[in-house]
Amino acid sequence: MKALVYEGPGSKSWKDVPDPVIQDDSDAIVRVDATTICGTDLHILKGDVPEVTDGRILGHEAVGTVEEVGSAVKNVSVGDHVLVSCITACGACRFCREGRFGQCLGGGGWILGHTIDGTQAEYVRVPFADTSTYPVPSHSSDEEILMLADILPTSYEVGVLNGVVRPGDVVAIVGAGPIGLAATLTAKLFSPSHIVSIDLADARLEAAKGFGADVIVNNAREDAIDVVRKLTGGLGADVAIEAVGTPATFELAADLVRPGGHVANIGVHGTAATLHLERFWTLDLTFTTGLVDTYSTPTLLRLVSSGQLDAAQFITHHFTLDQFEEAYDVFSQAAETKALKVVLSRA
Amino acid sequence: MKALVYEGPGSKSWKDVPDPVIQDDSDAIVRVDATTICGTDLHILKGDVPEVTDGRILGHEAVGTVEEVGSAVKNVSVGDHVLVSCITACGACRFCREGRFGQCLGGGGWILGHTIDGTQAEYVRVPFADTSTYPVPSHSSDEEILMLADILPTSYEVGVLNGVVRPGDVVAIVGAGPIGLAATLTAKLFSPSHIVSIDLADARLEAAKGFGADVIVNNAREDAIDVVRKLTGGLGADVAIEAVGTPATFELAADLVRPGGHVANIGVHGTAATLHLERFWTLDLTFTTGLVDTYSTPTLLRLVSSGQLDAAQFITHHFTLDQFEEAYDVFSQAAETKALKVVLSRA
Amino acid sequence: MKALVYEGPGSKSWKDVPDPVIQDDSDAIVRVDATTICGTDLHILKGDVPEVTDGRILGHEAVGTVEEVGSAVKNVSVGDHVLVSCITACGACRFCREGRFGQCLGGGGWILGHTIDGTQAEYVRVPFADTSTYPVPSHSSDEEILMLADILPTSYEVGVLNGVVRPGDVVAIVGAGPIGLAATLTAKLFSPSHIVSIDLADARLEAAKGFGADVIVNNAREDAIDVVRKLTGGLGADVAIEAVGTPATFELAADLVRPGGHVANIGVHGTAATLHLERFWTLDLTFTTGLVDTYSTPTLLRLVSSGQLDAAQFITHHFTLDQFEEAYDVFSQAAETKALKVVLSRA
Amino acid sequence: MKALVYEGPGSKSWKDVPDPVIQDDSDAIVRVDATTICGTDLHILKGDVPEVTDGRILGHEAVGTVEEVGSAVKNVSVGDHVLVSCITACGACRFCREGRFGQCLGGGGWILGHTIDGTQAEYVRVPFADTSTYPVPSHSSDEEILMLADILPTSYEVGVLNGVVRPGDVVAIVGAGPIGLAATLTAKLFSPSHIVSIDLADARLEAAKGFGADVIVNNAREDAIDVVRKLTGGLGADVAIEAVGTPATFELAADLVRPGGHVANIGVHGTAATLHLERFWTLDLTFTTGLVDTYSTPTLLRLVSSGQLDAAQFITHHFTLDQFEEAYDVFSQAAETKALKVVLSRA
Repeated sequence: MKALVYEGPGSKSWKDVPDPVIQDDSDAIVRVDATTICGTDLHILKGDVPEVTDGRILGHEAVGTVEEVGSAVKNVSVGDHVLVSCITACGACRFCREGRFGQCLGGGGWILGHTIDGTQAEYVRVPFADTSTYPVPSHSSDEEILMLADILPTSYEVGVLNGVVRPGDVVAIVGAGPIGLAATLTAKLFSPSHIVSIDLADARLEAAKGFGADVIVNNAREDAIDVVRKLTGGLGADVAIEAVGTPATFELAADLVRPGGHVANIGVHGTAATLHLERFWTLDLTFTTGLVDTYSTPTLLRLVSSGQLDAAQFITHHFTLDQFEEAYDVFSQAAETKALKVVLSRA
Repeated sequence: MKALVYEGPGSKSWKDVPDPVIQDDSDAIVRVDATTICGTDLHILKGDVPEVTDGRILGHEAVGTVEEVGSAVKNVSVGDHVLVSCITACGACRFCREGRFGQCLGGGGWILGHTIDGTQAEYVRVPFADTSTYPVPSHSSDEEILMLADILPTSYEVGVLNGVVRPGDVVAIVGAGPIGLAATLTAKLFSPSHIVSIDLADARLEAAKGFGADVIVNNAREDAIDVVRKLTGGLGADVAIEAVGTPATFELAADLVRPGGHVANIGVHGTAATLHLERFWTLDLTFTTGLVDTYSTPTLLRLVSSGQLDAAQFITHHFTLDQFEEAYDVFSQAAETKALKVVLSRA
Repeated sequence: MKALVYEGPGSKSWKDVPDPVIQDDSDAIVRVDATTICGTDLHILKGDVPEVTDGRILGHEAVGTVEEVGSAVKNVSVGDHVLVSCITACGACRFCREGRFGQCLGGGGWILGHTIDGTQAEYVRVPFADTSTYPVPSHSSDEEILMLADILPTSYEVGVLNGVVRPGDVVAIVGAGPIGLAATLTAKLFSPSHIVSIDLADARLEAAKGFGADVIVNNAREDAIDVVRKLTGGLGADVAIEAVGTPATFELAADLVRPGGHVANIGVHGTAATLHLERFWTLDLTFTTGLVDTYSTPTLLRLVSSGQLDAAQFITHHFTLDQFEEAYDVFSQAAETKALKVVLSRA
Repeated sequence: MKALVYEGPGSKSWKDVPDPVIQDDSDAIVRVDATTICGTDLHILKGDVPEVTDGRILGHEAVGTVEEVGSAVKNVSVGDHVLVSCITACGACRFCREGRFGQCLGGGGWILGHTIDGTQAEYVRVPFADTSTYPVPSHSSDEEILMLADILPTSYEVGVLNGVVRPGDVVAIVGAGPIGLAATLTAKLFSPSHIVSIDLADARLEAAKGFGADVIVNNAREDAIDVVRKLTGGLGADVAIEAVGTPATFELAADLVRPGGHVANIGVHGTAATLHLERFWTLDLTFTTGLVDTYSTPTLLRLVSSGQLDAAQFITHHFTLDQFEEAYDVFSQAAETKALKVVLSRA
């Protein structure tokens, strides 16, 4: 088959590789009908994720059709149309029993396109298929469901639920890239009174309005703290969500919340941040970090299939699988192309 | 009356000052029967708390007898024997309505010995007396109840409850001074399987055993991370409580917890710490800070008066009020004197 | 002044009574600008609430203007435009400190129009004014804010929050009177996937659609359990809210939920219900009851003033205060008049 | 092998049956080293549980040694010494993913000795072995770990955790049989200020003292409501746990709690109870029911193996497997024999 293979920092190619085969009786082989590229894949390509070794097939998001299942697979059958989640779960370890699938100790967690071959390929081997795939609802399109492989549960669980957004809250979201927009969209499920989207790019802030932000702040030229304070009688936001991954944006998020507020980090960080405990120690703040667990995926599937969550609006570009290298170019140059999520489909 | 007056950094004296008088109809004047000195008072004396101005009477902890009440006071009467809490609560603002009394917006919060005159005196004016004092249970001694003015609710709320200690947990407590020991004592209310006490001083670690720690680590010569990992199958502690207030101890606490763990900061910090988001972003961690709210004071009063919480064991030294300067010396030289809490009583 | 006076079961009149006066220094006298009639008032008139004695002025909901305040009132001033809540809170007792204002042990709770004179009058004395009134947001109308005196916080707290409605849930609401409709409206704040409204009257079910129900069931001729099971793969609703107050409707609510589901009772009950523990004991069910605490009132005020919650849609009829007897007629014959909430305003 | 076979209401025998065999690749065959009898087994023998058909081997609790595993079993190996839990979990269904294993939709739940052959035998087939067994800690005895097969997690999860016992609480436990005693023992993990044990038998109440109750009430001759009110300033208990399973005891539990209190039902009920909503509707009560999920089993294993929970104290009688009929006699005549839990061990 063809697959997008990582060949060391800065290098990748769409090329012939052997077809995946069942290695464990809980595996499934899934034909990839639609896949996408994640910001994390760009990090890998820069060489930032050393666990990814040369020759690895990238990608941790797919919608596909089951081609073959191992003998121990009980709930997934050949021909099933399934969502392949970024998180693989053994279903039996201490953390899986607690619903903390992202921290799976039994061989799962984030492994696809990371420590085993991934979904940017014509076929993919999915370990622990019973606990790592979800049926695609009938009447839903592949591409909208594909948004539930990573971006929507990540922003919802790690941003909105960890941040404990409640009706009437003022929510500040730092970053209006795909993750920040997904946090905006899913924060609205809890009816906050205001969502303040903060970014350096006007185009992204315009997009944020479409996803539900009612206040936008370009912090290249406006003081976000000042805007949020004015909106909250001087107190600060109830919840701040960090959706960028730099020390400066994390520190801004921390400064945006009121006493008793929550700061939920979603961003992928490469360096440490400063935590101003000399100011924060009295302020009843809660800071959270997290990898998605996908415990919310069934809920999000219901909300997308009922039309309450418009997942398709993230998709800005369509390609076929053999256009993978072009798709990477478009996605990695988002400032020019205005790409949010690109979808690659079987021709 | 006599009072302990702050006279600028490094300077204080026990001297004659005017008696306090009712200023607002919700005030009470309380005769101080027993008071104590807090680590925060030492910070003030070093000049670290600029809101405290020359001439301020220090102290935010007392047990006393009500001498006079303002016309609007309804639940406190002359002659009542009461605990004066470190936190004053207006009872009506948004935060008081939410039980977040430490963040009171109506003129309360931590004000005694801070922005108004405090309890290290023969008499003290207590604003919002109805919502800022508690009846001393009959059969309880003044000095054990005095431990509920600050140290026990602080360690319980900001350490143990914010840290969400649960039965069977492994709890690591960084710092075995009075606050760390109070966290140790109150963590035991939730039956953790292990409490690991970490400090640089062997004498304090010995004390920690008496308060309920079953594992002690002198991190001048042992690797606390290693000890905790061995105890937890390599995963880390469920909860780490920071009870010192330095960047190094906070960063240690953060490194001690498992994926999904809680880091509860109690320490008073003077400088920022480093938050290693480049390692923590995937680990489902929760960090909390907080000022005590005293919402737990009624519960702790019940536990002390029923004998389930031995509050008196903190008290290492007794003085009369006119020995205040000597008491400060003993308390500030805890390494030599082994002072935990000193009690000063009306002669 | 004129007031609506209860004169024993079946009897009431709008008549001259003495003006209220300050009795306690925490009281305020409020001129009633708008008030309404509650289903509970009809219960009282039937003689179902024996604590209400002859001569009592009825009513526990108002928006008005402060005319006079007691000497201890700090946060409310003459001329303030305020919401008078159905719950009066002393602010200092154990339950008030916990935010459980409806259970106030210090002289509050539901007292207006119950154990003291109420709001269906030209003026009303409001005890504990600091902790029992809320400023009316500028730009909001009296009549929409009046809906926050009882019906909206009651349905939100006792129905939606006690029932723990979550995004994607299926919520069944038994009863489409004003309380059931308010539960429908506020359940939507959490983005359930379906709200099933169940009633015997088609007109009410039509109204429920306007308030946000997407499935309606007339259980005079349809089997609600069957409808809900079909909607939920046979499992049952996540949450059922009882908004009628009869054994049959409570028992229906209990039968509607899935294993692990919540049954939140709002209804005012006059007789006991049957709890089928022989079927429920294994099913992980949670049943809650409650009197409103009004802890959510600040949140609801924010949502109404920002336009996210259309409180005015409950109001079907307008009267002036001197039309009180006619207003009672219209409200008590809701089946014919289709009255939901009637508003009576100062002329 | 030999097994205890149900032969219709009132009839059972210890007799030869075929050895169990692997039926599904996720099964294990476990040699029973120790098993016990549950109150539920007595219900079955009375004919109260119609799903149990003639010829069924009873029993849902065991500690044993793995003899054989199916090809899909990954975490359990031949020779492992394991706890066989009363709850079998598929690990993949919606409820298992939520940790609600007792409600497993994938073929698990309470099936052993109920819908499939059970543990009162020399060997037992355990479906879904990976997610339904737990390693026995070294240094722990079989018989103390056996108490974690049902009684301890049931009382802890369904009684103590559902009832939300907190430090300082007054907890009333209705029933001092094995389940009520296990609730007493595990309630103490949260340091309540009082545990009130209520029963009709003085011998059981004496036992309750040994398990941690500090107040005992024989409600054949004392008024439990009166005792609890006196202990709580007239308010009622914070938590009441029902551990009998009759309408009268449930209704007593409901009357014992304060406004805002929790009533946690553990009892197995055969008939409906009356819920006095005409009194409860205003009282902010929470009632819960539940089947054990065994999510707490790893925690309890830690607490037993560290010596913090003395599980062995339930065991009053020891037998060998071939004494099964005698053991049933002793257990079923607990009033005379004072049996709490009987253990049957391989000779």
